[in-house]
Amino acid sequence: MKNRTMASAATFWAALLGTTSVLAQNPAPVLPTAAQTDPVALAWMVGSPPPPNKTVQFHDGSFYKFPQFRWSFSNYRQLAPTTNVGRGTGGASALPRGERTDLDAVTFTPLGKTEPMTWAQAFDANYTDGVVVLHKGKVVYERYAGALQPEKQHMSMSVTKSFFGLIGAILVAEGRLDENAKVAQYLPELKDSGFGDATIRNLLDMRTGIQYSEAYGDPKSEFWTHMFAGRVLPRPAGYHGPDNFYAFMPTVQKLGEHGGNFAYKTINTDVLGWVISRVTGKSVGQNLSERIWQKLGAEQDAYFAVDSLGTEFAGGGLNASLRDMARFGEMMRNQGRFNGQQIIPAQVVQDIAKGGDKSAFPQAAYPSLPGWSYRNMWWVSNNEHGAYSARGIHGQAIYIDPKAEMVVARFASFPMPNNPFNDPTSLPAYMALAKHLMK
Amino acid sequence: MKNRTMASAATFWAALLGTTSVLAQNPAPVLPTAAQTDPVALAWMVGSPPPPNKTVQFHDGSFYKFPQFRWSFSNYRQLAPTTNVGRGTGGASALPRGERTDLDAVTFTPLGKTEPMTWAQAFDANYTDGVVVLHKGKVVYERYAGALQPEKQHMSMSVTKSFFGLIGAILVAEGRLDENAKVAQYLPELKDSGFGDATIRNLLDMRTGIQYSEAYGDPKSEFWTHMFAGRVLPRPAGYHGPDNFYAFMPTVQKLGEHGGNFAYKTINTDVLGWVISRVTGKSVGQNLSERIWQKLGAEQDAYFAVDSLGTEFAGGGLNASLRDMARFGEMMRNQGRFNGQQIIPAQVVQDIAKGGDKSAFPQAAYPSLPGWSYRNMWWVSNNEHGAYSARGIHGQAIYIDPKAEMVVARFASFPMPNNPFNDPTSLPAYMALAKHLMK
Repeated sequence: MKNRTMASAATFWAALLGTTSVLAQNPAPVLPTAAQTDPVALAWMVGSPPPPNKTVQFHDGSFYKFPQFRWSFSNYRQLAPTTNVGRGTGGASALPRGERTDLDAVTFTPLGKTEPMTWAQAFDANYTDGVVVLHKGKVVYERYAGALQPEKQHMSMSVTKSFFGLIGAILVAEGRLDENAKVAQYLPELKDSGFGDATIRNLLDMRTGIQYSEAYGDPKSEFWTHMFAGRVLPRPAGYHGPDNFYAFMPTVQKLGEHGGNFAYKTINTDVLGWVISRVTGKSVGQNLSERIWQKLGAEQDAYFAVDSLGTEFAGGGLNASLRDMARFGEMMRNQGRFNGQQIIPAQVVQDIAKGGDKSAFPQAAYPSLPGWSYRNMWWVSNNEHGAYSARGIHGQAIYIDPKAEMVVARFASFPMPNNPFNDPTSLPAYMALAKHLMK
Repeated sequence: MKNRTMASAATFWAALLGTTSVLAQNPAPVLPTAAQTDPVALAWMVGSPPPPNKTVQFHDGSFYKFPQFRWSFSNYRQLAPTTNVGRGTGGASALPRGERTDLDAVTFTPLGKTEPMTWAQAFDANYTDGVVVLHKGKVVYERYAGALQPEKQHMSMSVTKSFFGLIGAILVAEGRLDENAKVAQYLPELKDSGFGDATIRNLLDMRTGIQYSEAYGDPKSEFWTHMFAGRVLPRPAGYHGPDNFYAFMPTVQKLGEHGGNFAYKTINTDVLGWVISRVTGKSVGQNLSERIWQKLGAEQDAYFAVDSLGTEFAGGGLNASLRDMARFGEMMRNQGRFNGQQIIPAQVVQDIAKGGDKSAFPQAAYPSLPGWSYRNMWWVSNNEHGAYSARGIHGQAIYIDPKAEMVVARFASFPMPNNPFNDPTSLPAYMALAKHLMK
């Protein structure tokens, strides 16, 4: 931190993110419900002009306050520059429908609780903005709330990372990227940074030893400089730090050794994105459009939040429609096949699904994920259904259950960022739904 | 102007826009050619990261320098916040193809010249980024250059105004807007501004008497405050003016009388947009999506540049794909019918096509538009083909020739903003093409 202004801004953001205030309180405070914070009912940004107490803007930080972000997450493009992940010029691929009315009543017991809850109740408990469930490729459930609609894109937060990891893994499978090579071999610019002697595999599995704290509650976390560099958040007055993502990456120092335990640090994804761009000569978004989005027959373009140089926000910048996330999840479930073609190599999906090194997964840090592991920036349950997931803060998820032939795509705007708050009413709900669909 | 910093910034922009420097010079300086300024060849924003001398950014103003804007005009979304004009979830409507190879050789004589020029030569002379020509509803010509591609949107500049005027005229036809009513009747907020006692018809035909100079070369023009308010251009340091479009509009004062000569002043379109939003409860972009874009079967979403409140930049914020502009033009040519349905009322199109009051058109100010008039924010040639056009700076155009059953949609990045620079190699080219197609 360069100065007090910046430290103070980070404290402000940490407070907004809710980690300091809410995590520190035990029991957690009673939060306004999903219904009470419905962004349509609250009429954010309605009116010409919207009344001053109903505006949501980037520059004043209101876009990332709760409950305002229940509006922002479905309207990010209105707030900041973005790049397109084009679907091409064709029509959307078929997404067969077979809605079932029995799913709302499916019952599960939230983690740590004894009282059961229904799937319908979980929708609100998780501040869900929308969910699509596919079973054997058919839409068996689709529901939206608040500011989200079928044709709109929603912030996917760290689900983004799984897309970066997937494209990285594809390049490894194609032999264009050597997972055992050092980062500096592809990016001489990072030779003297903490990443120089990390391997591509270290990046893909987030097992680098670097000085980068993801602790949102600590204003001194490198995370904040990272966000300010990329203009993901409005910069504090007097900010003199790095002006874009590329300028930030070389400043990250080494701490400890590479190849140790999985340590979730967003910056690994940025560096992977840089490697992908260097090797392919195209941005990750262009890769995603050409390699996957156009072939999926996506219904909508997706888009990325970007810095002032158009560099995609690797940590959480991807926005997409829910149906397209479901199409993507279905492609994963089908070993890379969808829309009548093999879109990505089956071996890449299999490598993710079989999971990472369980002994390297710091179990204590993830009480809601017992037995899970991390591979190619995907979260792998290693449970009896072989489920694996892309996960983002505030409840974003793509959840693939191979045994149940089920895919869940969900967007949410849960008040607290950390998923341990919504996992208890999400993960057992997915499993209960899977078992119900298998009957 | 509040202070010297701001006046200096406006001078900077005026110089960039080229009006002071280039218009003042006679003969005009020799400009680098389209080939010499091809944005792909110049490799703007290529590389990870792009080299410092190849970056195009919003904050430093480089996005609106020539030749950088040959890249920016096809990538505006990467530079600033935008709102979507959704095409819905369906596929695109058919756009039958019947390319003709004889059109490139069509010859015309540029205005004020004696040497003939071919259609193909005019493509480069106009720094064309793309052009689509429809004849009897078929694509007879489609060509792209530089940074534009079929699936990409391009800035349409003041073509935007014709969309606002069209929607305004539709609301008049529907009886939801009284063209003889005063602006203050719909917008009490503007009662004490210059617009208060102007009629809706005055707005639609830009015949208001207001103190607002469009002279780009004059740093004291109200135009600059308008642009800074909406963050269309980066604000000068120390800017303390209006923070958004809504805050600027009430500051515009009366000058002279309403109902006089046509006087092209961008702010009329903003006020019309406010009226449309107030009357419909939806933004102009939402109106455009629901009333036109979805029904057209557009191939791509369109989008608007917006201010910090998400208010669309009425003066020039619409970005769309060229094929969709052609679809839209074809709907106009067919009296509002396209894609198997009557999308807008035929009488609205007829009202535009028959033109405005010719005696109110200040001929001296538009030497390249002899006999033209202005109606509902459309430019009407009143020529023997009954052609009318939506026009935007730097060469943007939708040109509809009813007699020849021809529609031209063109995007360009001509170095100078004012269309009198490119009209001489555009308007006679359209007429020559029309006559050729009628043979």
